Amino acid sequence: MRIGILTAGGDCPGLNAVIRSVVHRAMTGYGDEVIGFEDGFKGLLEGHYRTLDLNAVSGILARGGTILGSARLERSRLREAAETSAELARKYGLDALVPVGGEGTLTAARMLSDAGMPVVGVPKTIDNDISSTDRTFGFDTAVMVATEAIDRLKTTAESHQRVMVVEVMGRHAGWIALESGMAGGAHGICLPERPFQVEDLVKMVEERFARGKKFAVICVAEGAHPAEGSMVYKKGEIDQYGHERFTGIGTRLAAELERRMGKEARPVILGHVQRGGTPTAYDRVLANRFGWHAVEAVHRGEFGRMTALRGTEVVTVPLAEAVTRLKTVPEHRVREAESVF
Amino acid sequence: MRIGILTAGGDCPGLNAVIRSVVHRAMTGYGDEVIGFEDGFKGLLEGHYRTLDLNAVSGILARGGTILGSARLERSRLREAAETSAELARKYGLDALVPVGGEGTLTAARMLSDAGMPVVGVPKTIDNDISSTDRTFGFDTAVMVATEAIDRLKTTAESHQRVMVVEVMGRHAGWIALESGMAGGAHGICLPERPFQVEDLVKMVEERFARGKKFAVICVAEGAHPAEGSMVYKKGEIDQYGHERFTGIGTRLAAELERRMGKEARPVILGHVQRGGTPTAYDRVLANRFGWHAVEAVHRGEFGRMTALRGTEVVTVPLAEAVTRLKTVPEHRVREAESVF
Amino acid sequence: MRIGILTAGGDCPGLNAVIRSVVHRAMTGYGDEVIGFEDGFKGLLEGHYRTLDLNAVSGILARGGTILGSARLERSRLREAAETSAELARKYGLDALVPVGGEGTLTAARMLSDAGMPVVGVPKTIDNDISSTDRTFGFDTAVMVATEAIDRLKTTAESHQRVMVVEVMGRHAGWIALESGMAGGAHGICLPERPFQVEDLVKMVEERFARGKKFAVICVAEGAHPAEGSMVYKKGEIDQYGHERFTGIGTRLAAELERRMGKEARPVILGHVQRGGTPTAYDRVLANRFGWHAVEAVHRGEFGRMTALRGTEVVTVPLAEAVTRLKTVPEHRVREAESVF
Amino acid sequence: MRIGILTAGGDCPGLNAVIRSVVHRAMTGYGDEVIGFEDGFKGLLEGHYRTLDLNAVSGILARGGTILGSARLERSRLREAAETSAELARKYGLDALVPVGGEGTLTAARMLSDAGMPVVGVPKTIDNDISSTDRTFGFDTAVMVATEAIDRLKTTAESHQRVMVVEVMGRHAGWIALESGMAGGAHGICLPERPFQVEDLVKMVEERFARGKKFAVICVAEGAHPAEGSMVYKKGEIDQYGHERFTGIGTRLAAELERRMGKEARPVILGHVQRGGTPTAYDRVLANRFGWHAVEAVHRGEFGRMTALRGTEVVTVPLAEAVTRLKTVPEHRVREAESVF
Repeated sequence: MRIGILTAGGDCPGLNAVIRSVVHRAMTGYGDEVIGFEDGFKGLLEGHYRTLDLNAVSGILARGGTILGSARLERSRLREAAETSAELARKYGLDALVPVGGEGTLTAARMLSDAGMPVVGVPKTIDNDISSTDRTFGFDTAVMVATEAIDRLKTTAESHQRVMVVEVMGRHAGWIALESGMAGGAHGICLPERPFQVEDLVKMVEERFARGKKFAVICVAEGAHPAEGSMVYKKGEIDQYGHERFTGIGTRLAAELERRMGKEARPVILGHVQRGGTPTAYDRVLANRFGWHAVEAVHRGEFGRMTALRGTEVVTVPLAEAVTRLKTVPEHRVREAESVF
Repeated sequence: MRIGILTAGGDCPGLNAVIRSVVHRAMTGYGDEVIGFEDGFKGLLEGHYRTLDLNAVSGILARGGTILGSARLERSRLREAAETSAELARKYGLDALVPVGGEGTLTAARMLSDAGMPVVGVPKTIDNDISSTDRTFGFDTAVMVATEAIDRLKTTAESHQRVMVVEVMGRHAGWIALESGMAGGAHGICLPERPFQVEDLVKMVEERFARGKKFAVICVAEGAHPAEGSMVYKKGEIDQYGHERFTGIGTRLAAELERRMGKEARPVILGHVQRGGTPTAYDRVLANRFGWHAVEAVHRGEFGRMTALRGTEVVTVPLAEAVTRLKTVPEHRVREAESVF
Repeated sequence: MRIGILTAGGDCPGLNAVIRSVVHRAMTGYGDEVIGFEDGFKGLLEGHYRTLDLNAVSGILARGGTILGSARLERSRLREAAETSAELARKYGLDALVPVGGEGTLTAARMLSDAGMPVVGVPKTIDNDISSTDRTFGFDTAVMVATEAIDRLKTTAESHQRVMVVEVMGRHAGWIALESGMAGGAHGICLPERPFQVEDLVKMVEERFARGKKFAVICVAEGAHPAEGSMVYKKGEIDQYGHERFTGIGTRLAAELERRMGKEARPVILGHVQRGGTPTAYDRVLANRFGWHAVEAVHRGEFGRMTALRGTEVVTVPLAEAVTRLKTVPEHRVREAESVF
Repeated sequence: MRIGILTAGGDCPGLNAVIRSVVHRAMTGYGDEVIGFEDGFKGLLEGHYRTLDLNAVSGILARGGTILGSARLERSRLREAAETSAELARKYGLDALVPVGGEGTLTAARMLSDAGMPVVGVPKTIDNDISSTDRTFGFDTAVMVATEAIDRLKTTAESHQRVMVVEVMGRHAGWIALESGMAGGAHGICLPERPFQVEDLVKMVEERFARGKKFAVICVAEGAHPAEGSMVYKKGEIDQYGHERFTGIGTRLAAELERRMGKEARPVILGHVQRGGTPTAYDRVLANRFGWHAVEAVHRGEFGRMTALRGTEVVTVPLAEAVTRLKTVPEHRVREAESVF
């Protein structure tokens, strides 16, 4: 068989582990040929690809990023890809395509699949917000990086009687904030799923100071936002270069807390360090397994599906099912964390 | 309510996170009182305990070890504990006991429960070998430590054209070897579940050298053993002090490979670094959740049960079910890893 | 003897290691009594202190922050402290005071010393900008944190053909940017010591893209600034709450590069994670040695001095010498780094 | 100019950083050509080398090991290399040779230099035992790895009332044991430089238990040994395969302590994890600087010398001076550490 693979969307620790695993399983398990398209669907459309053999994937398991590159593609061109699906498959002699990506990529994968391309998707997102899979690789690494940052900030907050506001990734789903907040022992956690009352955070901090715990760490997802009326909050203005000024929720919230309480409050915006670099052992194992199972699914002819973790097992589920709704933090997980506001 | 908690068995990253979580949930959620027995069941039998309030568990979330201590107790004294269960509960005014421990501890917990003590167990083992729960806390940390070691050893093996044999924990179940071997990209993995042929390892290494990859890393569980006849293997002799000499499988296997191939092969025995120190974010979250759910189970009166992870959810399962058999690595997980011998 | 110790100024990994070391050496080496003033000079002036024995410093070696707390004190009150120096020493029965702090603290220490207080200072700053000592503890940790971030960002930059601008600490001296930039292999480094031409950075990035290296990482000290006319650069405006908007050099530079090159450029502002949390082994050793030598200096009556690293040895140098000028990055260190702009 | 480079001796984090730095400086600074000999002096003698350009050293800065490989060479063949030095230089058209290695390599380098090869050496050893340089790269990484292990072991020792004996590298010099012992807060440190009395260790542990600190961590260099008569100590026997059984000092000491005190004492032998893998930021910076200065020395014609760190500066010193004696831990450093036995 001839299997194509591509990686699309934002960076995510574990992409290289998937590529390596697909190549290993396909070549040593089945004697397949694997080709890798460069820069996501762009490479597929424009014919940029290279053969991947064992040497090509040697030493990449623990490396961040993706050796195939990744680029965003406009929606119109994705549609083009979908429409010429069958033709593309013929052109490259593809028996299967394994696109590795997030919600957007999997939606495109589904379009391609519907149009006749034999597709087995592999879900990827540090945000852990894809339905139908218990977890996605990249998420554990993001949580680990955020937790290590909270660990460091906590000692400073405590020694200097300060409030620290850590903004972590998560535009629509609060999983990173929830788990790094729990793991780091944040005293307040704010999620996109629940508008928060600044007043409640102020009260929590003041109660802590009152009982001698003169510091607090608040972990806030970038997509979190105050309840209406709870905080004067304007979206970032446009500066002289036409760029939106960075005035994310972390910076705003720290300023607001400082203003209301007269206590030092400092924002830390973790940003891209959460989505790059070497994956945790957990993410490497999951990425490995997803790659292995994608090849198995190809050989069983289970197309139009993607790999998914269910409990301890990796299975495949219909792409259709996976991309219909975002997996957000449910109410009972919020209760467990105790400190979500 | 008055809830007792104790930690028993070997060290395991996340124990303090469970203790903290139980205290937090019980006190702030229900206004309970929590007492902690020292050194496991010993403290319960001998009356060594202390009240745990929020200050007592402040700052322990990320700390390895257990603030309550842990000690092994002979089987006879465990039976004594079980027989006097009802009396003990009365004596300390306990409405519930939360023992945190591995297979031995949970068996004891079941005996106490059968004898009338209201018990909610929390499973704990770095080996991940407890049935009825998808994972246990401590395991992720052990795998991470082992993986980081393999990452380091690999560069030396490669530069110096050498075989490295890393012995990781796992006397009866090979989960740590399986996952750290996969995550570290070990070229050979040996599990307690499958006697290995030394010959097969030799062949793998020689094939690697033949195609220019002049090094190999082999990850072997301490409980792995060669198939009968595959390797001359004597159990450790007793030295002049009456101690068994350390001649574990890692050291033996490295010597055997060196002898057979005439290539440098070096053993590294990771040992106790795998079971101590700060837990990973994953383990902290799981430990947190187990503690929270143990208190919930207490308040729902779900005794004779233990917390368990099933997919994404924490549930409770009968203690009886959990301790009947060891969870070992099944055949289909072996296949996924590719490099298990 | 009765020795007082206090920690002042911003957080710095290794403070607790110094405190512990002073207590250990003073108590077990000389049978001294040690008292710790809370929140820096404030505790000294207001009489907040506690006795520190071996138990008080148990387990703090690897902990970030300072168990004594730290607070900024206005200059007027520092003068007050200095003026009442002799009186304060009498009041607390102090035979020596060991203030641990940065340039401000050491200047205050010198004032106290001049006014009659027997003082042995210990220099502390993550910025490594104190003259008379080869290195200060805290610096190695800051460089390590920044380097790990650059390592992570690099893989994302490469996979996604992007420019990453990492802003690290260093308002007046560029040591952190220099060393983390070198260690992380940043393609551009900007220091406070040398105004940079944006044009040169643009050229470097474009040359990289031209020869197929379609990414770049630029490490910029928070105190770095463009040469006059090189970049339209306004200091942060004041927002509706009277707070200065965060518009640091990292964010500005990324926006400017994006504007000029039409390529994605993303800022990451590391912030306070660089100055908190567990110290590296290097910093723990140096902090340990500084504490030990401070006590030795006290017992040799070497007052008005501070500990300093010279080559491999810890010595003491006059406080006067240490605080006269900031240690900035010299020209020959810039040359070694190759990528400083 | 045409510069040759080779790496010899045991693995050491930072080797690749030196190679990269030499290539960068030589090519971009002077337009030199750089060739890399494979597997140390073996490649030089046998003519295995390759040209190193910027692409060849791309992405290796943070990688452990050496892309050039390293192999031990018998003394006779080293002499052969020396004798044919001038001829070899002619054969490869070498204007300079930069050998990177430890004491053995530098001795060989000196022989080559004496015989007419233009040599600038770069010292390398995780043991930090080379005279004439304040520190060597690789050492900081080894200390960091050992310190992280001690951190982990401490929590287990404490929770389980146990003695942990950690054996770290250092056959002839105790620098790793000294600094990781200090950084990890080991209660006992044993160095090759000072035979220890087991009795003193026993006393220390028993005093700790007596005052309620019921655990201890002892950090012992592999080359440490008990004072005569202090401990029955036999060198490892030879097993049936002709291999010496691993019965290092760590294992022996733990057994002996257990025997004498009747308390659990466990050995952990860190082994090769200390000498492989990604270098710390400190080691990367030092390796970078050594490489840069080696090229500068070549262009200044300073042959027969090696790079060295003196205080904050990198200088060159005569090879003759560097290899005459091992740099061991001096008495005043022992005193500072307090817990050396």
